[in-house]
Amino acid sequence: MANKLTSRDQDYSKWYNEIVVQADLAENSAVRGCMVIKPYGYAIWEKMQAELDKMFKATGHENAYFPLFVPKSLFEAEEKNAEGFAKECAVVTHYRLKNDEENPGKLKVDPSAKLEEELIVRPTSEAVIWNTYKTWIQSYRDLPILINQWANVVRWEMRTRLFLRTAEFLWQEGHTAHATKQEALEEAKLMNQVYADFVENFMAIPVIQGTKTASERFAGAEETYCIEALMQDGKALQAGTSHFLGQNFAKAFDVKFATDQGSLDYVWATSWGVSTRLIGALIMTHSDDNGLVLPSNLAPYQVVIVPIYKGEEQQKEIAQVAEKIKASLEEKNIRVKFDNRDKFKPGFKFNEYELKGVPLRIAIGPKDLEKNSVEIARRDTLSKNIVSQEEVLNYVENQLEEMQHALFDKAKRFREENIIEVETFDDFKKAIKEKGGFVSAHWDGTDATEEAIKKATKATIRCIPLDAKKESGKCVFSGKPSTMRVLFAKAY
Amino acid sequence: MANKLTSRDQDYSKWYNEIVVQADLAENSAVRGCMVIKPYGYAIWEKMQAELDKMFKATGHENAYFPLFVPKSLFEAEEKNAEGFAKECAVVTHYRLKNDEENPGKLKVDPSAKLEEELIVRPTSEAVIWNTYKTWIQSYRDLPILINQWANVVRWEMRTRLFLRTAEFLWQEGHTAHATKQEALEEAKLMNQVYADFVENFMAIPVIQGTKTASERFAGAEETYCIEALMQDGKALQAGTSHFLGQNFAKAFDVKFATDQGSLDYVWATSWGVSTRLIGALIMTHSDDNGLVLPSNLAPYQVVIVPIYKGEEQQKEIAQVAEKIKASLEEKNIRVKFDNRDKFKPGFKFNEYELKGVPLRIAIGPKDLEKNSVEIARRDTLSKNIVSQEEVLNYVENQLEEMQHALFDKAKRFREENIIEVETFDDFKKAIKEKGGFVSAHWDGTDATEEAIKKATKATIRCIPLDAKKESGKCVFSGKPSTMRVLFAKAY
Repeated sequence: MANKLTSRDQDYSKWYNEIVVQADLAENSAVRGCMVIKPYGYAIWEKMQAELDKMFKATGHENAYFPLFVPKSLFEAEEKNAEGFAKECAVVTHYRLKNDEENPGKLKVDPSAKLEEELIVRPTSEAVIWNTYKTWIQSYRDLPILINQWANVVRWEMRTRLFLRTAEFLWQEGHTAHATKQEALEEAKLMNQVYADFVENFMAIPVIQGTKTASERFAGAEETYCIEALMQDGKALQAGTSHFLGQNFAKAFDVKFATDQGSLDYVWATSWGVSTRLIGALIMTHSDDNGLVLPSNLAPYQVVIVPIYKGEEQQKEIAQVAEKIKASLEEKNIRVKFDNRDKFKPGFKFNEYELKGVPLRIAIGPKDLEKNSVEIARRDTLSKNIVSQEEVLNYVENQLEEMQHALFDKAKRFREENIIEVETFDDFKKAIKEKGGFVSAHWDGTDATEEAIKKATKATIRCIPLDAKKESGKCVFSGKPSTMRVLFAKAY
Repeated sequence: MANKLTSRDQDYSKWYNEIVVQADLAENSAVRGCMVIKPYGYAIWEKMQAELDKMFKATGHENAYFPLFVPKSLFEAEEKNAEGFAKECAVVTHYRLKNDEENPGKLKVDPSAKLEEELIVRPTSEAVIWNTYKTWIQSYRDLPILINQWANVVRWEMRTRLFLRTAEFLWQEGHTAHATKQEALEEAKLMNQVYADFVENFMAIPVIQGTKTASERFAGAEETYCIEALMQDGKALQAGTSHFLGQNFAKAFDVKFATDQGSLDYVWATSWGVSTRLIGALIMTHSDDNGLVLPSNLAPYQVVIVPIYKGEEQQKEIAQVAEKIKASLEEKNIRVKFDNRDKFKPGFKFNEYELKGVPLRIAIGPKDLEKNSVEIARRDTLSKNIVSQEEVLNYVENQLEEMQHALFDKAKRFREENIIEVETFDDFKKAIKEKGGFVSAHWDGTDATEEAIKKATKATIRCIPLDAKKESGKCVFSGKPSTMRVLFAKAY
C-alpha cells in the first residue's frame, strides 16, 4: 500500500496493473488467467450489478440460471458461434480423480471416468439456452422471452490482464426470443441504449454507440451494437455489446413457433452482455497518479471520516463529532466510513483513501473542535475546504452530485479532444501513432481494406457510429467512394 | 400446467418432481444432472439471496470472488478434503477444440492443447481460497478475514434431483480466518445461528441446530454445526452447515501469522454454506396437493388480482378498481400482480396461482363493483373472505403477516409430532419404518454402531442437538452407556 504508483506518463500499463492490486480491487490467482476479485473490487461490482439489474427489470426482463456446461454436440450446433469460441474453451473430459499409486497422497485423473461426451465450460450461453428455449416455445403466445442471467464464463485467452481480459470473468448475458425481426432488432437497440445510459450516468464514462463491422461482430450475430469508450492512453475499450442474432440460433436448434396467422416460423433472437471488464474501463477513465478515482454512484463508501488527535481524551471528543456527522449522512443514504483505528496515522489513512478513490474525505482535528468545523477534501480535484459542522450534510450532498457530473464532463471533454477527422492515410497513420484516440475516416466498406489498415497500424474499426451523418467521401486507404465516416482506434 | 398433480399420499417423490416443473421453478437440462432454474424459481432464490446477504453484512462479512477452477496440486493439499470430493469432481484437461476432419462441421478435443496440470471445477473453495489467504495474512493485524462468496459449484453426483441434489448448484460459501481457536469456534456457531434465524423466520421452516458426528462431518472439518429440517414425508433434510476447520487448511497451505505476542501460529478457519437445495426444503415443508405454498416473505408476488368479467366494458370498470388496489398495496411495498390477460379464463388463472403458491388471491367480479367489495383467498388455508375495498390494504397486510407465522407454526407442530423417543432397537426400527420422522435415541458414540444402525435401517444420525440435555441411558443398539440422545432419521 505504501508504495507510490508508477506514473501514467511513465508506463500506463504498469500504472494500471499497480492500481488494481494496490487499491485492493483484484489480484492474479494460482489459476492461469483467473483473478481473485477482492472485497473492495467486488463491492464496486455489486453496485454495478444492483443498478443494471434494476434497469433490466424496468425494461421487462427476468433473471434465470442455465447450466455452466455445454455438451459438445450443442456447442457445435451453431457453426459460426462454435468456430468463434472453439479455440479458447476449457473442456471437461472426466468426472473423477483417484489415488495416484505411484505418488502416495497425490491424485490423478481416473481414466475409467471419462465422459461419453465432452462438456465445454460456457464461454457464452446461446447454445445451452436455445436448446432450452426449444421446449419453451410453441406458439406466438410464448413470446417474447426476456431473460437475463448473472454468471461466470470462461474463455481461454492466451494473454490476460486483470479485469480487461481474464480466462474466467463475471458478467450478465441477456437472451431474448421474439416473434418478429423488427421486435428483435428493437430489443437489441434498446439494450445497447440501456448500457449507454448505465455507463454514462452511473459510471460517468462517455460512450459512442455504434454497430460493428462484419469482421468484429459476435460470432453468430447478424448485427452487433456496441458502446465504445476512450481510455486515458488513447486506446478504445469496447464496454458492452448487444447482438441481433437473426434466426441463426433458432435454425441451429430448430426452434419454430406457430405465428398468430397459423404458419410456422423460426424465432428471432438477441443476446447482450457487459462484464467485470467495465471495472477496467472505470479505472482507465477516471483515475490518476495518486490512485483510483471513483464516481459517487459507484464508491463502496462515498465519504471517509479521519480523526486527527493527540491522546485518548481528544480522540473521544472528535469521535463524538464524527459519529454525529456519520449518522446525519447515513440518514440520507450516504455511505460513510469512520476510520477511528488507532494503529495508523492520519497521513497513512489519507494515502490509503486517496489510493482507493473515496470521493470525499472529512478530516476532524482539535482546531475543528474549537471552530465547529471540519476539513473536506474532494478526490478528483484534490481541493480542500473548511466547512462548518452544520453545513456538512448539505455540502456533502452537493459535492457528491457535482463530482459525479464533473467526472463525466472531464472524460467527455477528453474524448472530444481525441477524435480527429483525417482524409489521407498518412495523416491516419500519424494520428494513430502519435496521438491515439479515435480517428474518424472514410472507409470503403470492405473486409480487405479493414484488414490492411489493421495490419499497417494495429487500428481497427471500433464502430460505425449510430449518429454518423451521411457524407460522401473517399476511403482513407483505397480511395474508393464512401458514404460515411467510421471510427478507428487501437483497442483493449 | 393444466395437469393435476400426483397427490403426496400416492407418491411423494413424484409429487415433488411434478411440482418443481409445473410451478415453473426448474427443469432438467441437456447436461446430465444440471438444472435450469426458471424465472419463477430464480425469483425465489433472489429473495433468499438478498436477505442472507443482508444478514452476512450485518455480521461483518464482505463478498469477494475466487476462481472457478482449482489446480489439482491445490485440490489435493488438504488430504481429507480432497478425499471427500475426489470421487465426484469435473476435471478440465484441455483448453481448445479443433475441427474434426472425419466429421465435417463437428469439433473434437485438440490433443495438442492438453493442460500441464488438470483443473478441478470447484466442488467447494477452501483450497483455492486458503492458497490466496496465504498471501493476505502475515500478522494478527490482518485478522480476522470475514469473506463470503456467491457462486456455482459442481459435484458429480450419480443420482440427481432438481434442487435437492444436482451436479451444479448455486450457493454461498463463507470462508473466515481467525487468530484464535475460540474466535473461529464462535464464528462457526454464529453463522449456524444466522442460518437458523434465516430459515425459521424468513422461510418459515423450523430447524434443529446441532453438530454432526465424525462420519457425517464435512471433509476437512473438526466440527460441523448444522440445521436439520423435517420434510412432510418424514425424511430429514440438512438445510445448512457451518464448519470449524481448526488449523487443517492453514497447515495444508502453510498459512502462519505473527501473534500479538510475537510468536508464529497457524491461522484458525471456518467455512459455511447454504444452497439452492433450500428451495427443495421450502417445497417439501409447506406445499400441498394443489401445488406450491409460499411464505409471504419469499413469494415473488404476494398478491395476485384476477378480474372476473363479461365484455370489454366490465373489464375496464374492474381494471380501474384493480389498479387502484394494486397501487395502494404497492405503496406499502407489497408485491402485486394484476393478471388482466384476456386469453385466459378466471378458473385457469386461479389454478395457475394456486399451483405457484401465491399467498393471497384477490378476485373482483361484477357483484363486487356493486357492493364495493372483493373476494380474498388465502393459499395455505384455501379460505375465502369478502372484504370491503376500503379494508383491503389492512386485511392484506395482516393476512400476509399471519400466513408467514401460520406456516411456521404448522410446520413446527408437524415436526414436534414427529420426534419420537425410543429405548429399544425394535421400537427404533418400527419408528423409522412405519412413521419416519426424527427418532431420538441413546447412542454409544462409536462409528461402528452408527454404521450398523444405518445398514439395518437406512437411518443416520442427523445431529447431536445443541440443546440436548445430559441424560444417562443405554445405547439403543449396543446397550452400552450413553450420556445423551441424538436424532436419527432417513435423510435427503
